[in-house]
Amino acid sequence: MKIAILGMGKIGSGVYEYAMDMDTIAVVRTFDIKKWMDDMTTDIDDIVNDPEIELVVETMGGVNPTKEYALKCINAGKHYVTANKQLVSEAIEELLDAAKKNNVCLMFGAACGGGIPYLKNLYNAQNADKITAVGGILNGTTNYILDRMQTEGLDYEQALTSAQALGYAEKDPASDVDGLDAQRKLILACAVAWGLAPKAEDIPVSGIRHIKPIDIKYFKETGRVARLIASADKTEAGVSASVEVHLFREDASECAIHKNVNFAWYEGQRSGRFSFSGQGAGKYPTAVNVIQDVLSIMKGDGRMLKEDTVIAKASAERERCFYIRVKDHEFEAIEKIAKAVKREDGYVLSETIPVKTEEMHAMMKNMCGAFFAAIE
Amino acid sequence: MKIAILGMGKIGSGVYEYAMDMDTIAVVRTFDIKKWMDDMTTDIDDIVNDPEIELVVETMGGVNPTKEYALKCINAGKHYVTANKQLVSEAIEELLDAAKKNNVCLMFGAACGGGIPYLKNLYNAQNADKITAVGGILNGTTNYILDRMQTEGLDYEQALTSAQALGYAEKDPASDVDGLDAQRKLILACAVAWGLAPKAEDIPVSGIRHIKPIDIKYFKETGRVARLIASADKTEAGVSASVEVHLFREDASECAIHKNVNFAWYEGQRSGRFSFSGQGAGKYPTAVNVIQDVLSIMKGDGRMLKEDTVIAKASAERERCFYIRVKDHEFEAIEKIAKAVKREDGYVLSETIPVKTEEMHAMMKNMCGAFFAAIE
Repeated sequence: MKIAILGMGKIGSGVYEYAMDMDTIAVVRTFDIKKWMDDMTTDIDDIVNDPEIELVVETMGGVNPTKEYALKCINAGKHYVTANKQLVSEAIEELLDAAKKNNVCLMFGAACGGGIPYLKNLYNAQNADKITAVGGILNGTTNYILDRMQTEGLDYEQALTSAQALGYAEKDPASDVDGLDAQRKLILACAVAWGLAPKAEDIPVSGIRHIKPIDIKYFKETGRVARLIASADKTEAGVSASVEVHLFREDASECAIHKNVNFAWYEGQRSGRFSFSGQGAGKYPTAVNVIQDVLSIMKGDGRMLKEDTVIAKASAERERCFYIRVKDHEFEAIEKIAKAVKREDGYVLSETIPVKTEEMHAMMKNMCGAFFAAIE
Repeated sequence: MKIAILGMGKIGSGVYEYAMDMDTIAVVRTFDIKKWMDDMTTDIDDIVNDPEIELVVETMGGVNPTKEYALKCINAGKHYVTANKQLVSEAIEELLDAAKKNNVCLMFGAACGGGIPYLKNLYNAQNADKITAVGGILNGTTNYILDRMQTEGLDYEQALTSAQALGYAEKDPASDVDGLDAQRKLILACAVAWGLAPKAEDIPVSGIRHIKPIDIKYFKETGRVARLIASADKTEAGVSASVEVHLFREDASECAIHKNVNFAWYEGQRSGRFSFSGQGAGKYPTAVNVIQDVLSIMKGDGRMLKEDTVIAKASAERERCFYIRVKDHEFEAIEKIAKAVKREDGYVLSETIPVKTEEMHAMMKNMCGAFFAAIE
């Protein structure tokens, strides 16, 4: 199959290298903002208008101008494979609509889980069983930070600096550490599992920016390990979804996920829970997932979404118990729902009565520097 | 698609139930040794000669008469989906040959990993990257026994009895506890990954029958957890494969695999290690994998083996360090290769110089009641 690649950064060049090794895929054109290869163009229309190109791979990231590019390519009748979670999570209905109209495939396996073939397996699984829940450790950067804080005693800033030095975290780490990246991936997982893509604004999200060594000290004392979890359940009304730190007992599978590894699972009503782990980012792992999507399309199995996938309302109704650390003066607000244990640095609330996840998120949002985590 | 099911035991009835819920799959005939359903026959030729049946699912187990049945059905031009690891591991070349001649699909995803879609992902992965190694915890029964011994202090007999009471282990548990079931699954994984199916006789296998509380006491003291591992590497000469207990550091992913869960992984040369976990056996998990194979065939993606898959020589050349427990009088034989630490019940050798895996297996084979494990 003759393909073009938009964005020849780390992942794009990985796809290029893989394709070069394969007899069945030929990269006939690449696109980037500056020309630095022979077959490269800086004009998207060179790709859109090239009838030879049957499939376009996009590894640029962001929504602007990638959304325009995606719609142009799809409307020109080209299959579209993207690793861009932001684009797909924000424009899923529009992209799918265009793909349906033009009778081309839209695949985005590398947009959730990096190298892990999670979304394709999830799509296959929902064909064979009713999926009741999806989730996992979907962001490697935050897992790296949490892991180093917990195994080596680093504080948040030290662990973040180390993640940046290794290229795991960006200079502005907000989309990772505040949970937005995990939130986008969760939207994709819901869309694949149920044909229901929740809006980002309906998924409460809380990251790891405010976690402190004192929290981790408390987790260790109570035999818990912290991981940033994105998870969603199918409810009668639609989807219940949220992103926040969860505390696991030490023998849980999540605790064995170290460094920047990703861990994604789904639950089938009859078949139980299946988990997938591996490199969730990086040049080759992500590129290999892109290549697998291309190969799926080539063998006529290029579907990752139900035909009738729609944007859907979501909530976060699941009731959970939470660990909460707040300042003295914020104590009153949560006193009503929680049993407090005072510790040296603010209040640490070791036990709460179960609270709706969305209520806990709403309450904690305005407490500066406070931290909370769901107890598994 | 119109299908027939051979063997209406636990898994076969699971497949039947799933298919009943689906619009796209119709079970038009079932086969068992005694007739107890309306559409059931006890004569295989009723299925072989029924032109309406496009695909046959076999969930009977064993090689006799299933091999004859499989060849009859395939030669009658029917796609074949089986959960029978013994059959496929022993007759892979013959079955594939017949499938090629008759231009039908042969799928056996449920034969390795139960519900885990491991083999299909492995086949897809080898299309996109060079697979360097495969393996995992491929037998749930032994994992259940080892886990209960290690977490609850049961001895081997107690844990086995419990596994039998729960239906995880058969009355004669030999094929599980001696590692033969894991060995068969490993043969399938090698065949899918490399088109090379090692002969069972070339894969050294050692199970868990001789593990004792004293071993586990020692593992705990040294911070290790025991799991039965089937693993294989691609070597220049072919395949290096073995099955034996491995000892992992407590933070390894394998240690988080509890009860009868399976854990299967592969390593891509460029994309790294990907792991899959879930229920490795049981009615619905296994049935859902069978259904996924049927769906793959229906969408024209019914391939799980390279065309040129062959029986191949194998060895177990990887050098590893081993934990060994032998009786006093057997000490001399291994003294040459190991540094001994004497303990109350026989010799426990905590450190050895690296030894070829096949040499260790060969040496230990004749030492009655001795136990050994590879140190990760």
